Amino acid sequence: MPENDTMQNFLTELRRGSLTLAVLGSLREPRYGYALLQILQEQQIDIEANTLYPLLRRLESQELLTSDWDTSESRPRKYYTVSAKGKEVLRQLLTEWGNMQRSIEAICGKGEDNGK
Amino acid sequence: MPENDTMQNFLTELRRGSLTLAVLGSLREPRYGYALLQILQEQQIDIEANTLYPLLRRLESQELLTSDWDTSESRPRKYYTVSAKGKEVLRQLLTEWGNMQRSIEAICGKGEDNGK
Repeated sequence: MPENDTMQNFLTELRRGSLTLAVLGSLREPRYGYALLQILQEQQIDIEANTLYPLLRRLESQELLTSDWDTSESRPRKYYTVSAKGKEVLRQLLTEWGNMQRSIEAICGKGEDNGK
Repeated sequence: MPENDTMQNFLTELRRGSLTLAVLGSLREPRYGYALLQILQEQQIDIEANTLYPLLRRLESQELLTSDWDTSESRPRKYYTVSAKGKEVLRQLLTEWGNMQRSIEAICGKGEDNGK
């Protein structure tokens, strides 16, 4: 069995790129941080608030997300939405994702003979 | 349109994790570097020798690959094969890959409404 650290590093590397895809995809409608966190977790995406919130700020500073405060409730919430630029990035990442899926399936099979 | 650099960084991040998967999957049978490079390129995996060869050495030092020199030809070739430990990593990465695929599809759709 590989040491847990080695394994964890490979898994982290594998997840990192797809996380941006999941976040941009989820924010095609406006959502505040905590609601987004719940959606990702419901979809078995293993992410915590202290990873997601910095990522949201980074994507906003890269102009892939826009944000708006909703102050109509007693607790103000910051809603994020994917920008036009973010949609273009999302589109290209989804294309690449599809290509990678085809490549991996061609190389590794569809899962029946995994790891043999 | 996003600047090319931003886009390129996202694509690189997305590809990086899946590359290990593709390399381990391809080396379930022994192959030498150049033959592996051709297989990956045939599967539209965009990788160059100066990325692949250091990756092979890294995976070998992590004991996920073993190597053997074939000196029977005029030009000796180093053949790489996935080790038992490498197979276990491959198995776990493929499981994670399948999970990520389901999550991304649930969030982004199967491609019909990409980027909308």
